Amino acid sequence: MGIVHPADLEEPKSCVNMPGTKEIIEDRSSYRLIKPRDKCGVAGVYSRSEQDVSPYLFYSLLSLQHRGQESCGITTYDGSFHTEKGMGLVTEFFDLKTLESLKGYVGIGHVRYSTTGESRIENAQPFVVRHSMGTLAICHNGNIVNSMELRRKLEKAGQAFISTSDTEVIAHLIIREYVKSEDIVYSITEVMKKLVGSYSLVILTDDNLIAVRDPLGIRPLSLGKNDDLIMISSESVSFDVLGARILRDIKPGEIALIDGEEIKSIRAFKRSRKAYCMFEYVYFSRPDSILNGIPIYDVREKIGRILAEEDDIDADFVSPIPDSAIPFALGYSNASGIPYRESLIRNRYVGRTFILPHQQARELAVRLKLNPMASEIEGKNIIIFDDSIVRGTTSKRIISLLREAGAKEVHMRVGCPPIKSLCKLGIDMPTDRELIASGRDVEAIRKIIGADSLKYLSIEGLTEAIGLRENDLCMGCLTAKYPVEIQKFEQVLLPSFVDRELSNNNR
Amino acid sequence: MGIVHPADLEEPKSCVNMPGTKEIIEDRSSYRLIKPRDKCGVAGVYSRSEQDVSPYLFYSLLSLQHRGQESCGITTYDGSFHTEKGMGLVTEFFDLKTLESLKGYVGIGHVRYSTTGESRIENAQPFVVRHSMGTLAICHNGNIVNSMELRRKLEKAGQAFISTSDTEVIAHLIIREYVKSEDIVYSITEVMKKLVGSYSLVILTDDNLIAVRDPLGIRPLSLGKNDDLIMISSESVSFDVLGARILRDIKPGEIALIDGEEIKSIRAFKRSRKAYCMFEYVYFSRPDSILNGIPIYDVREKIGRILAEEDDIDADFVSPIPDSAIPFALGYSNASGIPYRESLIRNRYVGRTFILPHQQARELAVRLKLNPMASEIEGKNIIIFDDSIVRGTTSKRIISLLREAGAKEVHMRVGCPPIKSLCKLGIDMPTDRELIASGRDVEAIRKIIGADSLKYLSIEGLTEAIGLRENDLCMGCLTAKYPVEIQKFEQVLLPSFVDRELSNNNR
Amino acid sequence: MGIVHPADLEEPKSCVNMPGTKEIIEDRSSYRLIKPRDKCGVAGVYSRSEQDVSPYLFYSLLSLQHRGQESCGITTYDGSFHTEKGMGLVTEFFDLKTLESLKGYVGIGHVRYSTTGESRIENAQPFVVRHSMGTLAICHNGNIVNSMELRRKLEKAGQAFISTSDTEVIAHLIIREYVKSEDIVYSITEVMKKLVGSYSLVILTDDNLIAVRDPLGIRPLSLGKNDDLIMISSESVSFDVLGARILRDIKPGEIALIDGEEIKSIRAFKRSRKAYCMFEYVYFSRPDSILNGIPIYDVREKIGRILAEEDDIDADFVSPIPDSAIPFALGYSNASGIPYRESLIRNRYVGRTFILPHQQARELAVRLKLNPMASEIEGKNIIIFDDSIVRGTTSKRIISLLREAGAKEVHMRVGCPPIKSLCKLGIDMPTDRELIASGRDVEAIRKIIGADSLKYLSIEGLTEAIGLRENDLCMGCLTAKYPVEIQKFEQVLLPSFVDRELSNNNR
Amino acid sequence: MGIVHPADLEEPKSCVNMPGTKEIIEDRSSYRLIKPRDKCGVAGVYSRSEQDVSPYLFYSLLSLQHRGQESCGITTYDGSFHTEKGMGLVTEFFDLKTLESLKGYVGIGHVRYSTTGESRIENAQPFVVRHSMGTLAICHNGNIVNSMELRRKLEKAGQAFISTSDTEVIAHLIIREYVKSEDIVYSITEVMKKLVGSYSLVILTDDNLIAVRDPLGIRPLSLGKNDDLIMISSESVSFDVLGARILRDIKPGEIALIDGEEIKSIRAFKRSRKAYCMFEYVYFSRPDSILNGIPIYDVREKIGRILAEEDDIDADFVSPIPDSAIPFALGYSNASGIPYRESLIRNRYVGRTFILPHQQARELAVRLKLNPMASEIEGKNIIIFDDSIVRGTTSKRIISLLREAGAKEVHMRVGCPPIKSLCKLGIDMPTDRELIASGRDVEAIRKIIGADSLKYLSIEGLTEAIGLRENDLCMGCLTAKYPVEIQKFEQVLLPSFVDRELSNNNR
Repeated sequence: MGIVHPADLEEPKSCVNMPGTKEIIEDRSSYRLIKPRDKCGVAGVYSRSEQDVSPYLFYSLLSLQHRGQESCGITTYDGSFHTEKGMGLVTEFFDLKTLESLKGYVGIGHVRYSTTGESRIENAQPFVVRHSMGTLAICHNGNIVNSMELRRKLEKAGQAFISTSDTEVIAHLIIREYVKSEDIVYSITEVMKKLVGSYSLVILTDDNLIAVRDPLGIRPLSLGKNDDLIMISSESVSFDVLGARILRDIKPGEIALIDGEEIKSIRAFKRSRKAYCMFEYVYFSRPDSILNGIPIYDVREKIGRILAEEDDIDADFVSPIPDSAIPFALGYSNASGIPYRESLIRNRYVGRTFILPHQQARELAVRLKLNPMASEIEGKNIIIFDDSIVRGTTSKRIISLLREAGAKEVHMRVGCPPIKSLCKLGIDMPTDRELIASGRDVEAIRKIIGADSLKYLSIEGLTEAIGLRENDLCMGCLTAKYPVEIQKFEQVLLPSFVDRELSNNNR
Repeated sequence: MGIVHPADLEEPKSCVNMPGTKEIIEDRSSYRLIKPRDKCGVAGVYSRSEQDVSPYLFYSLLSLQHRGQESCGITTYDGSFHTEKGMGLVTEFFDLKTLESLKGYVGIGHVRYSTTGESRIENAQPFVVRHSMGTLAICHNGNIVNSMELRRKLEKAGQAFISTSDTEVIAHLIIREYVKSEDIVYSITEVMKKLVGSYSLVILTDDNLIAVRDPLGIRPLSLGKNDDLIMISSESVSFDVLGARILRDIKPGEIALIDGEEIKSIRAFKRSRKAYCMFEYVYFSRPDSILNGIPIYDVREKIGRILAEEDDIDADFVSPIPDSAIPFALGYSNASGIPYRESLIRNRYVGRTFILPHQQARELAVRLKLNPMASEIEGKNIIIFDDSIVRGTTSKRIISLLREAGAKEVHMRVGCPPIKSLCKLGIDMPTDRELIASGRDVEAIRKIIGADSLKYLSIEGLTEAIGLRENDLCMGCLTAKYPVEIQKFEQVLLPSFVDRELSNNNR
Repeated sequence: MGIVHPADLEEPKSCVNMPGTKEIIEDRSSYRLIKPRDKCGVAGVYSRSEQDVSPYLFYSLLSLQHRGQESCGITTYDGSFHTEKGMGLVTEFFDLKTLESLKGYVGIGHVRYSTTGESRIENAQPFVVRHSMGTLAICHNGNIVNSMELRRKLEKAGQAFISTSDTEVIAHLIIREYVKSEDIVYSITEVMKKLVGSYSLVILTDDNLIAVRDPLGIRPLSLGKNDDLIMISSESVSFDVLGARILRDIKPGEIALIDGEEIKSIRAFKRSRKAYCMFEYVYFSRPDSILNGIPIYDVREKIGRILAEEDDIDADFVSPIPDSAIPFALGYSNASGIPYRESLIRNRYVGRTFILPHQQARELAVRLKLNPMASEIEGKNIIIFDDSIVRGTTSKRIISLLREAGAKEVHMRVGCPPIKSLCKLGIDMPTDRELIASGRDVEAIRKIIGADSLKYLSIEGLTEAIGLRENDLCMGCLTAKYPVEIQKFEQVLLPSFVDRELSNNNR
Repeated sequence: MGIVHPADLEEPKSCVNMPGTKEIIEDRSSYRLIKPRDKCGVAGVYSRSEQDVSPYLFYSLLSLQHRGQESCGITTYDGSFHTEKGMGLVTEFFDLKTLESLKGYVGIGHVRYSTTGESRIENAQPFVVRHSMGTLAICHNGNIVNSMELRRKLEKAGQAFISTSDTEVIAHLIIREYVKSEDIVYSITEVMKKLVGSYSLVILTDDNLIAVRDPLGIRPLSLGKNDDLIMISSESVSFDVLGARILRDIKPGEIALIDGEEIKSIRAFKRSRKAYCMFEYVYFSRPDSILNGIPIYDVREKIGRILAEEDDIDADFVSPIPDSAIPFALGYSNASGIPYRESLIRNRYVGRTFILPHQQARELAVRLKLNPMASEIEGKNIIIFDDSIVRGTTSKRIISLLREAGAKEVHMRVGCPPIKSLCKLGIDMPTDRELIASGRDVEAIRKIIGADSLKYLSIEGLTEAIGLRENDLCMGCLTAKYPVEIQKFEQVLLPSFVDRELSNNNR
């Protein structure tokens, strides 16, 4: 048996624990491209007093670290461009000396996670290219569904690529327009017409800082400021850290140009619907972020309340799987009157450790991160909360841990409806067949994970908690109805999943 | 302004944030010794089926990582001794290859933090020495009050030292007895007669694994087992991780010998009183550990209840400074009926980062770690909980953050009586004059930290929550009454503090 | 005073000690490009028995390490492409594990040195790009004089660049032809029509290994083989190490295609003249290499003989500045009958060390590398040999060292005619004004360096020693007559040198 | 097949290439001690103007790097002691920051090589211990023959050890005397009475810098100075680098105390004979060092002359195995009139590289370091020089390389008489049975190495070249007659060699 990473076992809704979701696209011509499916965080800062912004970008990335732990990078501009990017956490890669070398009053930054295989420095961002009009640096969060098709067209026009990322495709498309039109906003608008999928971009072209959000607003992007700084970030927590406040979200289809004195907003596209990712509310964003005007924490607590209202069970206490499920459990407790207690203690130092091969490795992997307190649990009926269930393996192991610690009954409540379909718009998930809710009803899932009872949030409960219409959310992973046409780009994907499954079996 | 470490600002009761507590002992003879004051975790494992124990020691140290993050090490025995020790976290220093090189069915391990200056590899443990009877490896948690006197005596007998740690003194004392008596238990007993202070030791002499606890039981030490392993650890969480269970604590004054088949227990000393460190209950140990038979989590929750019973205030909600104050706040909420809510979100990735010099650095240092959610806080009356107040600087900053986020009233409740005196028995603390409660009454403290009201747990409340008599606890830092004679060793310490204060001013 | 690198002081004919020779090209449009001027070594290996070639490439690069110590890289092909490249020496960057990951029976490799500023991983080679026809990996040794012009044209056609190297320009030019013509040899031929300057290329396109040499043959490139391997290398020493033998040089203007069974040779261009770099014979190549059919060592020894024949001085002994001047001194000794002796001992461990700031730093920098033996030198008349004089600073210091060690007379003889003009075709040199022979006669130089007499090799002596006509050599650095039109590309360079000189003064 | 280090194959007279010479001493009592057999370089510097001496120690160690490449270290004193030591080359371990942290106007340093197994940081020097009188730092070059006996006695008196080195034994012996007598010179003298073997020591006790050489002067130690510095070093090259001059050698049996103003010399022991190691002259010291008043380079050249005088062969040319055999070959050439030529070119970058496993690995190992130039060799009769022959494997391979390159006849001449017996006094060598000259006459050796003729220097030739009486040299490795009684300490060694041989076979 090889080494098992506890991450593989533990957090099934982030791509950390979903090896193999990369798309292997079988190419009839000459090469086989493995396109990484990223989850990312992006940031941009402009200092009107012309201070160096690298410290502010560093803190912004630190506050976005939960969105990607594989690589990170910053590009700044002070007449010249300065870029530092590398593998590892923000605090591992950057040091004082590196930050001091990043001179400039405007800059952008990125944290990234990709599935596997292609976790190479070549894919780290910002992606920086020089062209006849100057230099373009770009950071991207999202997934371009038709990127292979766009790439093929560029290649046929003689374009060559050094990475496998969507970002390089977007960069070359923009530059090709820009060297013709010499108008950056026009160029981005033209490119947006071609892109199918999700994208929040921050772009640096000399002293222009530009924020772009796809016409459906699938991935988040916010605008903040304080006396000196104008800031862009995937999440508003980045502003809190620097004593800035959120101005507003970048609107779906908006291009925002930030230079010295003002923020120019161009609404390049306006659609009748939006498609805000519901998973940002349920799990992915930090609870202290405000997304599309809605505090995430409130949504999560309200989900707990709604679950309580829909529920009829009694128990000794309600308890979360820390940290993400805490507001769900607190909301439920407040609404139901059932006391809230801690029963699982998280080890803050485990992080990205390895687990040595031995018999109990899989169970150990969970125990290392979460330790059940028998003194609290023994003989008790417990309602345990998770934010979502993806493959179900962690839920199963935690319920088993609770039972071993003496729990009489374990009832699981989940802050998100059943996930039945692969996200194709920027959240890494396992393939459909690995999703426990794919083709199974709730009772079948309950049996697999071993709970005494199992209830999910309803889709109506979800929209109610978020406070948005179903038509303003992307719920593709719940309903398999995606807000963009994915089918026609998907056929090329299908063979690869067969490959991947097989190769997984061989490991 | 130089670099400020957020650790310096944030966790005032651990030595991470108390620079300068090393003892600089002015020596009239020939040298000036800086003795590190350690906080540590120790572990030992014996495999009856003769499996390699290094993975188990690795996981044990991982579960003790909160007790020391500066250096770590493991020594194993399989006929020969194998030692690997180095700077950094357990997951940073050890890798698969290193662990595989640590062959042996019995071994010991250590995690360590020391204040400053002497954070050198020479002081990393296990400390391993070869002598005429074989080899001795030793790990120590505690503080030997008369170590300088013992060291002087050894030096006068011709002994030379390579480190500045108490541990080397203990090792040489044991060996000197052992080469004469050839009886390891007798030797340890003789040395225990000489040692004044706190010590939990794990010792490896060829295939003997030995656990020793000082006659007052000041620092914790537990015994666990499963089908194969016999385990020693500073805390019982180490056993949970490996599916083992706690057998019992090593008793004050006990020497426990573990070899293949059995655990031989020798009660070398038995005193009429004990002196269990109250701070292990309040802050230092993990909440999921069981200490002297008492679950830590229960103690902390009971403290919250007692505080509620002693209190008469009303508020919109009760909220903890996460993570350590959560059980206090929950206990208070349950007893008082005031709802429990989260108001501060912790960034899990900040860890040991640096902060770049700029005006708001000190405030930023707190914000980076703890972000107040304005949406929860605005217009609310809040009872905020901390486990203890040492210097008061963090409390002050957090109260200020809450007010900026719109809190109407901020009432602080503290799970530990006022800390008025330097711990001299193994917990690192700033000097007396840095302690906010040294020479100040509660009202004066309240004004400094800016709370609307401030209440501490009473000493009676503390003993009631722990369930032990005052005479069975060490409460030296609360009462300045220490369970061992410290005065006669202290005079030599006094001049150093003057030095330290002065040198602090110079920084 | 800052840190002085002994390399800066010691070996004035390689770019190691010529800071500032990068071309800063003032760009009227939007950006300022710093183009690195590289010196490099390239290698390629094909195994007919389909063994992994990465070990052979590793040894080849090790034998070419003197051609570049800044970065190194290998790309192999086994159906997929595998690339590892990084900063540092071949033995520092590559380890067993990295080499084992480089699977494939065909591959290419590179060692590189560039002047400064742009010593970044982005410029490390092989440069690998994916395009619509597949993948292209390329390594380059040389300097494309019109690369900026070509780059501008590509940029205007929408091409963007991630590096500042000529190599990326060549790669994109080839790919643009290739995706149209689908004929790699035709494409390379077309690109060769556009390139002005020097280039020895090794290219890997899937299983084709291709060697290309510019029409004048300025930079070297050789072909070797043994029973299994077909090999390409900048120098024939690479073949010796692997028990292979040199077949022949790649001819000026030749494109050689190597696949499984045969070597297809296309003579794309044939010019009436050649322009073999004379500096490869005098200094840059290893003495044990055979270049254009001529053993380097023989050339160097013959230079010594010719110098003796042209000379009329008497001395106690002839002595080299080791290691490069040894064959010159031996040849002179044999021809003149004056004994050969060692007088300067080289410290083999100094390498790339730093020198601490203090008064004698500059002298120390030489002493650390070369120690004069007073016992051999005292009271003697010495003829000391150097291979060439570039800035003259090292010659001056060595003569001074010899005098301090007691030498009565120090006569310097130089194995190369005076270097009067900047090399623009692939050897890094300081700017014209830093060249001691630029605008000075021999007597003026003698006074500056402090020799009792000074004689250079004549240009006739050089052609005689090499055995080639002046018209078959590039002697641009001696005569300022370059074999390619450089003038029309040069004007753009001029302003930059002014900048550079000024900034040098500030250091 | 595993990895072969070229070092293992290439330089048979240094311990780099003699794995397994460690003494494994079977201990009847409790542990098995592997005592490293070191070769080392030591240095000490005192600045009368109270400059920081760490840069000077750094340069001294750099000039002694050939004496040991495994670990290095420096201790300085400025009221406090500062020590930095670590694994690797001087330029790898030390950087500017480390050197700047080593404050103090007096200090000592060490470079070390040990065979294997025990190449651990614990054995790195200076060895620093604190005792009741202060601190003692010590560096040692040599081998204490009776160290195990002395160690046993100390252990029986209760002393424990952290390393396996002789140096720790010497340190504890000195301290035990010193804390009693409080007179450092008296203490060292008393300890010298007990030590059997070779030792050159530099000791730092607060501001006293002390140099000690064993009564027979086996290992070298020199004294140098310039206007500011008083310097001690294993070799006089250290003085050259810093513009200092050699004053004299430390005399056999001398203790030299260096403080601010003067050098106090105590001749603790004076013997009727000396025992300068002849191998320092022949191979180990740098050619530009002056040893016991005799320039090494002159000795080596004279050896070549004597070999010529004793010889009667004719050849096309004389050629050295570079670098060490150059002066031998030059001396021979001058005396015989046979021309001197280079035929083997050394790759300066190979250093400590690994060799990948494959069939030709052993041959490759030599080729990587030394490349024969066929153009010089083909059809020629060659007299090839080596400084010494230890195991004969390298000689055999080089002769084979020369024949493959086309040499007609290869005659080997050796600058040292046959090495027949293991050095037990500080030069690492293989065991007797691995020495090719152990039990074989010259003709038998000639056949094994494949030379057309083979001649060694005679013992008379050696003493003549050095200019000392046989009675003033240690020639134990040539004659098996050692200048100290080794027999009585050797029996305990015998079993270990059997072990070692067996374990070698298993590799």
